[in-house]
Amino acid sequence: MSKRQMIIGMHLGNGYGSQPGAWRMPGTDPRSYASFDAKVRQAQAAERGKLQFLFLPDGPSQMVDIEEEAPNFNLDVMLTLAAVARETSRIGLIATGSTTFNEPYNLARQFKALDVMSHGRAGWNAVTSSGEDVAANYGQRIPPSAHRYGRAHEMIQLVQALWGSWGREAWLHNHNTGQFAKADQIAPINMGGKYVASRGPLYIPPSEQGQPVIVHAGGSPNAHDLAGPYASAAIGASFTIEDARAQRAAFREAAERAGRDPDEIKYFPGLMTTIARDRRSALDRRIAMTERLFPQRVAYLQRMLGIRLDPDRLDAPLSDKQLNAAHPSPRDPRSAQALKIAREGWSLRDVLAHGVIDYHPVIAGPAIEAADHMQEWFKAGAADGFWISPDIYEDGIDAFVDGVIPVLQERGLFHHDYEGITLRDHLGAPTQYGLDPRISG
Amino acid sequence: MSKRQMIIGMHLGNGYGSQPGAWRMPGTDPRSYASFDAKVRQAQAAERGKLQFLFLPDGPSQMVDIEEEAPNFNLDVMLTLAAVARETSRIGLIATGSTTFNEPYNLARQFKALDVMSHGRAGWNAVTSSGEDVAANYGQRIPPSAHRYGRAHEMIQLVQALWGSWGREAWLHNHNTGQFAKADQIAPINMGGKYVASRGPLYIPPSEQGQPVIVHAGGSPNAHDLAGPYASAAIGASFTIEDARAQRAAFREAAERAGRDPDEIKYFPGLMTTIARDRRSALDRRIAMTERLFPQRVAYLQRMLGIRLDPDRLDAPLSDKQLNAAHPSPRDPRSAQALKIAREGWSLRDVLAHGVIDYHPVIAGPAIEAADHMQEWFKAGAADGFWISPDIYEDGIDAFVDGVIPVLQERGLFHHDYEGITLRDHLGAPTQYGLDPRISG
Repeated sequence: MSKRQMIIGMHLGNGYGSQPGAWRMPGTDPRSYASFDAKVRQAQAAERGKLQFLFLPDGPSQMVDIEEEAPNFNLDVMLTLAAVARETSRIGLIATGSTTFNEPYNLARQFKALDVMSHGRAGWNAVTSSGEDVAANYGQRIPPSAHRYGRAHEMIQLVQALWGSWGREAWLHNHNTGQFAKADQIAPINMGGKYVASRGPLYIPPSEQGQPVIVHAGGSPNAHDLAGPYASAAIGASFTIEDARAQRAAFREAAERAGRDPDEIKYFPGLMTTIARDRRSALDRRIAMTERLFPQRVAYLQRMLGIRLDPDRLDAPLSDKQLNAAHPSPRDPRSAQALKIAREGWSLRDVLAHGVIDYHPVIAGPAIEAADHMQEWFKAGAADGFWISPDIYEDGIDAFVDGVIPVLQERGLFHHDYEGITLRDHLGAPTQYGLDPRISG
Repeated sequence: MSKRQMIIGMHLGNGYGSQPGAWRMPGTDPRSYASFDAKVRQAQAAERGKLQFLFLPDGPSQMVDIEEEAPNFNLDVMLTLAAVARETSRIGLIATGSTTFNEPYNLARQFKALDVMSHGRAGWNAVTSSGEDVAANYGQRIPPSAHRYGRAHEMIQLVQALWGSWGREAWLHNHNTGQFAKADQIAPINMGGKYVASRGPLYIPPSEQGQPVIVHAGGSPNAHDLAGPYASAAIGASFTIEDARAQRAAFREAAERAGRDPDEIKYFPGLMTTIARDRRSALDRRIAMTERLFPQRVAYLQRMLGIRLDPDRLDAPLSDKQLNAAHPSPRDPRSAQALKIAREGWSLRDVLAHGVIDYHPVIAGPAIEAADHMQEWFKAGAADGFWISPDIYEDGIDAFVDGVIPVLQERGLFHHDYEGITLRDHLGAPTQYGLDPRISG
């Protein structure tokens, strides 16, 4: 079985999935935001599907209209993953940790402890954080981009050096000789740069995968340059195959520029799913969750298509006149897909229910449509896999696991079981402990 | 049952208990340092004994001779407590978090998330951290005392304000009306002082106890002043009843100065235990663990007693000449106890095995001796309870739980079961959410 197969992760967020109104649906526990039981169950459902990783984004700010919506993220991503680590056995555990608003020693310690706790399943999504609302929680303003990315490079190197500061073979714990560890292999690193410094050592032995995997999320040239030397995976957001191919190529080229094999960095665009027995059921399900937001989305869709739309006529399809006048905005890559859906004759309500104004491509329909989408992108070289945001209302994760996964397996596109035990195994990431000797500081 | 009873906590450290050689004893898993299973089992043993809390000290540096000894602390106290929170149901969970080397927003978030996760059992031991080895891990030097304590006051207030920033009754999650929360009750705090600042809000709803309990560890006037306005418990280290009474009084007076009822702050001196069927077995057990350290401890004991001792004559009791010449050092409060033990005629090895040079009073003997010690201190007004560091080799926690606890219960000194569900319940700490209105910044 040397055939290339896709890698699939699942978004583990605020407990309600990706759809804003999900918290108030029947069958949903409206308290899932504060429920670690809920997060553990969701993680276990993903593991049942043999998904390779969970991805927990983080702000660490939560700008939402709290009157109507749940905050975006976990109460605390590391504590969620600690619970999940104890109550799952194989699935990888990737959390966002800001390179701007954390002390490197604290961050290094907690991620490596999670890696030991999970027996080698941790990954750190190293991002710089942006937004003044985040900075304000730290009594700061967002530093300029050069500062943020300069610090991010230093942070990743410092953290990796701390991870390697307890030598891989240093721990003897020899009952007979009384030697606990080889002191000369657990040594200070004394690293410091322009932004961060630490002495170390960090007193944490290696996990089954040595140390956590580095992940990066983003799509800017800065993101490519940060991921290139360090990341084993890039968490992306692409609306079209063309964009995804370009993003994947950019990450691969950045890895190559850093002296690495481009296959060492995997690109995962996002995909949102509402899996139901047919398109109509899926659309109705999404309408139930998000219809409240449709008036403002009509306004947004107007701009995407360059035409007037009437929020009071959600039941009607777009008129021929509207369709003929429409011209997809070149500034919004979702516009062409929105127009394509509108031309299929769906009512304005149903057009919106297709998720044409969402953060990622949306599949609302039977499982085979999601499988087809994933296969098409994967075969086109647009993805090494995907991170999925299923709607969680009722059975969204199970619907994906029981519906989409078997189709992908039948087509030889997805594994039937975990081949290894660590996140590094799941991603096909090479062994690394401490700094990568190929990357110079 | 209005009779005053003692409160007992247990030290949860590196996995081997308080005795340095324990990691290499038969029956001990020498890998417990990296084992979350081991920590969870230890916590469950303490909960079986109805102990009110676990206390996890933290460096965050780990200065030891790693050739021979395990690091002092947990891999990561918060991840350990996350595992314990999921796998216990009543026992309180107190961890040290540095006020000097943490961002207040990050610390506030993680402790309150732990509080929600544990259903109201979290406590924050707010300490300033000292030692250049700690500071070096943050690329810093230890700030002067005025800076450290100034920042500590600001940190605690800021963290409490963040905890209160999601109003206690703000979360409605009303299926029918679609109102998730009352936005006007989840509001920025915009607090800032000389050292730390944050805008907030912190998007975490209240736990069953509202927010974590504040604890402080130490015994200096600075410690009393920091604990006085905020702490519900003081983790102490006293070698004599007299010192413990003075410490307890100092904390109570500090609380009173801050406008609080002195009963709101409980004082817990430490106690180390090796419980065995008789004194001889207990001493042999301690000799097995720590004899390797006796040569250096002989040198230390010489200074405590002001006499010459021969490290090659561990088998012999001290001579009459030595005992007559001995004068306990007034600078070391353990000296009088050491001389008392020596006068009982124990060999030099056995004197040391009594733990006369340990971090806390040591009971090495049958359970009743520990119960007697605890009763005497408790009745003398020297303690509201204790934090126990049992040796963990083989069955140290079980020996305490099965031996000492029933004696205390029989004497009416310790409860038979948890009366409440939260740490605040266990400590008898009053309700508090957000800042304490009695304490001005």
